[in-house]
Amino acid sequence: MPALGELAAALELEFRGDPERQIEALASIDSATQDQLSFISEKKHLPRLEKAAAGAVILHPDWADKWDGCALFSTTPYIAYARATHLFDNHPRPSGRIHAQATVAEGVRLGEGVTVDPRACIEAGAVLGDRVWIGAGAYVGHGAQIGDDTVVKPGAVICHAVRIGARCTIHPNATIGADGFGYAASADGWVKIEQLATVVIGDDVEIGALSAVDRGALDDTIIEDGVIIDNMVQIGHGARVGQRTAIASQAGISGSTAIGARCVIAGQVGMAGHLVIADDVHIGGQGRVASSVTEPGHYSSGTPIQPLRSWLRSASRFTQLDQMARRIAQLEKAAGLGEQEEESA
Amino acid sequence: MPALGELAAALELEFRGDPERQIEALASIDSATQDQLSFISEKKHLPRLEKAAAGAVILHPDWADKWDGCALFSTTPYIAYARATHLFDNHPRPSGRIHAQATVAEGVRLGEGVTVDPRACIEAGAVLGDRVWIGAGAYVGHGAQIGDDTVVKPGAVICHAVRIGARCTIHPNATIGADGFGYAASADGWVKIEQLATVVIGDDVEIGALSAVDRGALDDTIIEDGVIIDNMVQIGHGARVGQRTAIASQAGISGSTAIGARCVIAGQVGMAGHLVIADDVHIGGQGRVASSVTEPGHYSSGTPIQPLRSWLRSASRFTQLDQMARRIAQLEKAAGLGEQEEESA
Amino acid sequence: MPALGELAAALELEFRGDPERQIEALASIDSATQDQLSFISEKKHLPRLEKAAAGAVILHPDWADKWDGCALFSTTPYIAYARATHLFDNHPRPSGRIHAQATVAEGVRLGEGVTVDPRACIEAGAVLGDRVWIGAGAYVGHGAQIGDDTVVKPGAVICHAVRIGARCTIHPNATIGADGFGYAASADGWVKIEQLATVVIGDDVEIGALSAVDRGALDDTIIEDGVIIDNMVQIGHGARVGQRTAIASQAGISGSTAIGARCVIAGQVGMAGHLVIADDVHIGGQGRVASSVTEPGHYSSGTPIQPLRSWLRSASRFTQLDQMARRIAQLEKAAGLGEQEEESA
Repeated sequence: MPALGELAAALELEFRGDPERQIEALASIDSATQDQLSFISEKKHLPRLEKAAAGAVILHPDWADKWDGCALFSTTPYIAYARATHLFDNHPRPSGRIHAQATVAEGVRLGEGVTVDPRACIEAGAVLGDRVWIGAGAYVGHGAQIGDDTVVKPGAVICHAVRIGARCTIHPNATIGADGFGYAASADGWVKIEQLATVVIGDDVEIGALSAVDRGALDDTIIEDGVIIDNMVQIGHGARVGQRTAIASQAGISGSTAIGARCVIAGQVGMAGHLVIADDVHIGGQGRVASSVTEPGHYSSGTPIQPLRSWLRSASRFTQLDQMARRIAQLEKAAGLGEQEEESA
Repeated sequence: MPALGELAAALELEFRGDPERQIEALASIDSATQDQLSFISEKKHLPRLEKAAAGAVILHPDWADKWDGCALFSTTPYIAYARATHLFDNHPRPSGRIHAQATVAEGVRLGEGVTVDPRACIEAGAVLGDRVWIGAGAYVGHGAQIGDDTVVKPGAVICHAVRIGARCTIHPNATIGADGFGYAASADGWVKIEQLATVVIGDDVEIGALSAVDRGALDDTIIEDGVIIDNMVQIGHGARVGQRTAIASQAGISGSTAIGARCVIAGQVGMAGHLVIADDVHIGGQGRVASSVTEPGHYSSGTPIQPLRSWLRSASRFTQLDQMARRIAQLEKAAGLGEQEEESA
Repeated sequence: MPALGELAAALELEFRGDPERQIEALASIDSATQDQLSFISEKKHLPRLEKAAAGAVILHPDWADKWDGCALFSTTPYIAYARATHLFDNHPRPSGRIHAQATVAEGVRLGEGVTVDPRACIEAGAVLGDRVWIGAGAYVGHGAQIGDDTVVKPGAVICHAVRIGARCTIHPNATIGADGFGYAASADGWVKIEQLATVVIGDDVEIGALSAVDRGALDDTIIEDGVIIDNMVQIGHGARVGQRTAIASQAGISGSTAIGARCVIAGQVGMAGHLVIADDVHIGGQGRVASSVTEPGHYSSGTPIQPLRSWLRSASRFTQLDQMARRIAQLEKAAGLGEQEEESA
C-alpha cells in the first residue's frame, strides 16, 4: 500500500497533498473511495470530478483548479494512469522454477530464472531466455525460441521453430505457428502446401487469447516490435504487421498482406490477401478491406443498424442501386441537367 | 430405456397411448423410428406428421387430431422437447474424484464430490463448490472461485480471481479472465494498462467453446444469471451482459458496453465500446452496432449477397450515394417537386 | 538435400538441366538462391523470372523459353509446387510411442504405431487407428474414434463419441464436438437442449486452429471427405459441409445449414441456419448469407471501405435508400419517364 508521495516519485510526477496519504488501489473516477487513486484523461470527463470521492486523482496540470483534493499532475494523464496500473498490479507472479509436473525435453536450453508451470510441455531444441514464464498446460514446440521475460499463458500453443522476442505476452489458448491455409486445387481434391516457413515475432508484442498467427509457406509471417493484438485475431501465413500497429478482436488478416506501422485495425475488420496497407491507417469496425490502402487516414465500410423493417427496405434497395443511378441519369438528361455521365456506364 | 408413461410422468405431461411402450431415444420427426420419441414445435411443421413413423410425438394438445399414434401433450412443445433431452442425455458423467494425474495446489478448497480430470491444474487459493467438474487439461487460476455444479470443460482456462456462479458450463478452450485490451498510446509505443479487476459470472450461465470474457481494468466484467453465450464470442473488458441475454457465435462486444436483459445478439454482430443496449433488443447477424440502442425491438444492418457482377455495381454505387441524393434534390428543384432538403446538406 | 533429377522423378515431371544439381530448399521466386527451387504458377508472374536467381524453377512447358536455367515442367505448376513442399517438409515427426506423461485410459484401442505426446489425455472407449498422432495436451473424449494417419495437434479437444476419418489434421486448440447452441425459451429462462448426436468427419479433412465443429442435437454434424477448414471457423450443430468445400478463417455456419460440394466460403462469411447452399458456390469475404443459394456461381455482399467522412455520408444515405427510390419514381412520373413502379411499393 504505497503513500501518495511514493506514487508520485515512482511515476515521476508533481503532486499536491499529504505525501503520507495511503493509497490502496486504483479505481474509476465514479467509484473511487478515500483510499483509492483515480484519473481524468480527457477534458470532457472533468464534470465527473464534482461528485468524485477519490483519495487522489491523476490530472492534467491545467485542470488543477477543477479538483480540491490530492492530485498527481501529468501532461499525459492517461499514460500516467497506465503506468500507475503497474504499481498496483495484482497478477500472480512466476515461481522461477520448473514444476515437477511439467515436461521439458532433454536438450532444451533454459535461461536464468525460467518458470515452467504444471502440465506445460517444452519440446526438444527449444530455447527459452531469462525469466521466461511458460504457463500451465502451454506448449512450446521443437526448436522454438522465446526471448527474455516473455510470458506464454496457460493453454497457448507455440509450434515448432517459431521465434518470439523479448518482453512479449502470448495470452491463453493463443496459437502461434499453426499451418497456414494453403492448398492447390487438383482434379483429385485439395493438395496441401506444406507450410515450410515459420513465424517471427519481435519484442514487446502482445498476442490476445485465442488468436492465431499462422506460419508461412515459403516466407515467414512477421509481427514487428511493439505490436498489440487482441483476442481471436487471425493473422494469415506470410502476413506482416508493422511496428506498434494495434489489431482489435476478431479481425482477420489474410495471407501475404503487409500492414504498415502504427495502424489501428478495429474489431472484426477483414483484409483480403496480398494487400499492402500504408503506415498510420485506421480501419473502422467490420471494415471490408479488399484492396491496398496507400494513404494514411481513417477508413470505414458497412452500414448502420436500423429497425428491422426499415433495414429490409434499405437492403433491398441496395441491390437496385445501379438501376437507380441510371434512372437519375435518364431524368437529368430529360431535364437537361447534370453531366449525364451514366449513359455510357 | 424409459417407457412412455415414465416419460410423461418425468415431464409432467398428459399422454396418449400405451404407457409401457419403450422409448429408446429422441429423434427428429423425419427420421424417428418406432422406438423413438420426436416432437412438433410449430404449426408449420404439422404436415411432416403425415410421413412420420415415430413411436411417440410431443405435440400441442390442439394438434392432437393431426397424429394417430402415441403422444405427449404440452402447450409448449419445444420446451417439453428440451426437457426430454435431459432424460436421454448421453454425455459422460463425472467420476467424483481427483485424478492422480491432475495438479491441485495446496490449500485449494474443494467442495463435496468434486471431479478433477487428468492434466487439469488448479492453482493455490482456488475455491471449488460442491460437485464442480474440472475437465482434462483445464486450468483454474489463483484464487478463482467456482460455484456448485459448475462444469469447466477440457482445455478451458479460468484466470486468477475470476468468480463463476453455480450450474454454469464453460465449454472447451474457452478463456475467462484474460487481460482486457487496454493500452495508452505514448511516444515510445503502447503502454500496457494492467487489468486489475476481474470477471464475475452469475448462475446458470453457458460460455461456448473458444469464447473469451476478458477481465476488467478497474471495473469487473459482468455476465449476469442465465446468460447463454455461443462459441468464439468475445466479451471485452468491463462489459456487462444482462440476465438471460443470448449471444450467438463470433459476436464481439467491446469494452465497457452494457447489454440489457433478454437481448438476442446474432452471430458475428460487432458492438463498439462504451455503449448501452436496452433490454429486449434483438440484433440480426453481422449487425454493426456503433451507437447505443435505447428502444427494445429488432435491428439489423448490412447488405444481402448478390451475384458477383451485380454486387460490384451495387458496392460501387454505394460510394456515390451522397452524390446520387444530391442529384435527386437538384432534379426535384428543377421540377418544382419535393422538399429539396438536400441543398443545404 | 535432393538432386534435381531426384526431384523430377519424385514429382514425375520432365526437367531441364544438370540432374545432379543439389536443391536445398523451396523458396519464392524473388528470394530463391542458386541452391533453391522456386515456381511460377501464373502467366502474369513470368516477368519475375527476369531477376530470378533460383537454382531451378517449376514452370509450365509453354513458358520454357522464358527461363534459361534448370527447370521442372508441369502443366499444373501450382500443384507441382504443392507436391514439392511435401518433399521438403520440415515438420517434426511422430515418435510412434505413448509418452510416459500421457494419460491413456484403460480399454482404449490403439492401432499400430500410434503416438501420444506428453500431457495428452485419451478417455475410455476411444479407438485410435494406425499411426494416429495425438499431440501434447490434446484431449480425446470417451468413445471417440479417430481414423488411420490422422493427426490431432496440441491443445485440440475431441469430445465424446466424435468420429474422425483417416488422414485428417485437427490443428491446435480446435474443438470438435462441443455442445451445439440449443435452448428453448421459457418463462424461467433458457432450457438447455442436450446435444445428443455427434460430429462425423470424413477422410482427408483439415480443421484449422481454434475452429469449432459443434455436435448435433438429434442429427449429427457432418464434414464430408476432402473438406478444408481454416482457423476460427464455427460450424454449428447439425450442419453439413459437402466434399472438398473450402471454408476460410472466421467464417461461421449456423446450425442445420447444408453446404454443397466444392464450395469456397471466404473469410468472415456468416451463414444463417437451416439454409441449403448448392454445389460450386463461392461466397466473397464477409458475405452475409441469409437465405439459401440454389445456383452455383460467385456471390458477394457488403460495401467497400471509404475515407471516413465519405463513408459517413454513404452510410447515412443507405438508411434513406427507400425514400430516394420513391423520389426517383415521383420525378419519373412528373417527367413522364420510366415505369414508375415505385408508386405501389
